[in-house]
Amino acid sequence: MISERPADWKAKLAVYAITDDREDTTSLLAAVEAVLAGGATAIQLRRKREDGGPMLALGLEIRRMTREAGALYIVNDRVDIALLTEADGIHVGQTDIPCTRVRELAPEKLIGVSARTIAEAIAAERDGADYLGVGAVFPTATKADAVHSGIDTLRAIAATSSIPIVAIGGIDVARAPQVLAAGADGLAVVSAMMSAPSPRQAAEAFASLYRDFDNARPH
Amino acid sequence: MISERPADWKAKLAVYAITDDREDTTSLLAAVEAVLAGGATAIQLRRKREDGGPMLALGLEIRRMTREAGALYIVNDRVDIALLTEADGIHVGQTDIPCTRVRELAPEKLIGVSARTIAEAIAAERDGADYLGVGAVFPTATKADAVHSGIDTLRAIAATSSIPIVAIGGIDVARAPQVLAAGADGLAVVSAMMSAPSPRQAAEAFASLYRDFDNARPH
Ligand code: NI
Repeated sequence: MISERPADWKAKLAVYAITDDREDTTSLLAAVEAVLAGGATAIQLRRKREDGGPMLALGLEIRRMTREAGALYIVNDRVDIALLTEADGIHVGQTDIPCTRVRELAPEKLIGVSARTIAEAIAAERDGADYLGVGAVFPTATKADAVHSGIDTLRAIAATSSIPIVAIGGIDVARAPQVLAAGADGLAVVSAMMSAPSPRQAAEAFASLYRDFDNARPH
Repeated sequence: MISERPADWKAKLAVYAITDDREDTTSLLAAVEAVLAGGATAIQLRRKREDGGPMLALGLEIRRMTREAGALYIVNDRVDIALLTEADGIHVGQTDIPCTRVRELAPEKLIGVSARTIAEAIAAERDGADYLGVGAVFPTATKADAVHSGIDTLRAIAATSSIPIVAIGGIDVARAPQVLAAGADGLAVVSAMMSAPSPRQAAEAFASLYRDFDNARPH
């Protein structure tokens, strides 16, 4: 059941779409398929109010789609669902199962940890996180109560961390360049992709912007 | 990490208390400790709206308390939390992870499955459930939208199933005797124990009633 890590997983953090909590799962899966067609390189299954059964069903579908697209598939919080759907990784926030305990259940999988501050970023790296989710960089409608940590915190964490950073929180195409310039390795986006008029075109725009930035920077 | 099944697990389904969703977890753990002191033989950790972190913390506390009391500790839906807290079992409803998939992750643990109908009971037993949670036997405030399946369904399932049955839904001390007479092996109770004026006395009343019934029936 344990899947090897994709060799190029760091590069695949680039355009990282996160599902929303909409009730209509057919529409949600259509949006996932569209953003993958547009060039999303990772999908995170995040459903905060979902029972295990429907979440498992969603995960199996997203695993099939991401495998076909060559994209990463990450599950938020629920290690059991990640194991049963052969996810590439698990993403945990500060109120989810701690990284060290996730590692006990999923030694081979990628583990991403959300960090709002430099202290949280240092702790996550020390605890064995494979990548960081840093934000909210900008104020966001998805997580109205989230602490807005800002671009300066992102820059500071990027300067001190040795693991890849996915930036999250209010990132749209207009703001993405300053996020990448601050040191993010990936752009994590919920509504600006999943709820865009055309999720496919939105993903294409992020993917194209990312490519341009990546080509321009020294390697 | 895998724990052996307690040899007397069937007998320990007798007085089966289920946690509620109250925000005050200190009060919740005090109620768990009180019902164990009163003679509850099983505790199910059920938190439908909880993130993994606080649920893990609750589970570790309840594991410690139940171990000390010699009671079963069961986790609702979340197999990951069950594994990390060394639970004796996992309980799944019809919208949780299916029994057969739970078994993949937790081959040694008890698996309970909720059944509202004879068809669901037959399917659960076929899928390898160790026990059934049957109900809601009576209308209940805890799950206002739950289908009320009634005492006749309980009796019919008890007659056709070869695995133990825990009855759930609106069971109080006054109604418990007819539930046991209908063939239930255990009494699952949320508010009538956890929210009783004295959770300890409530558990004592259920435990005493169960003992009287058990002593009176042919073995
Ligand atoms: Ni700001």
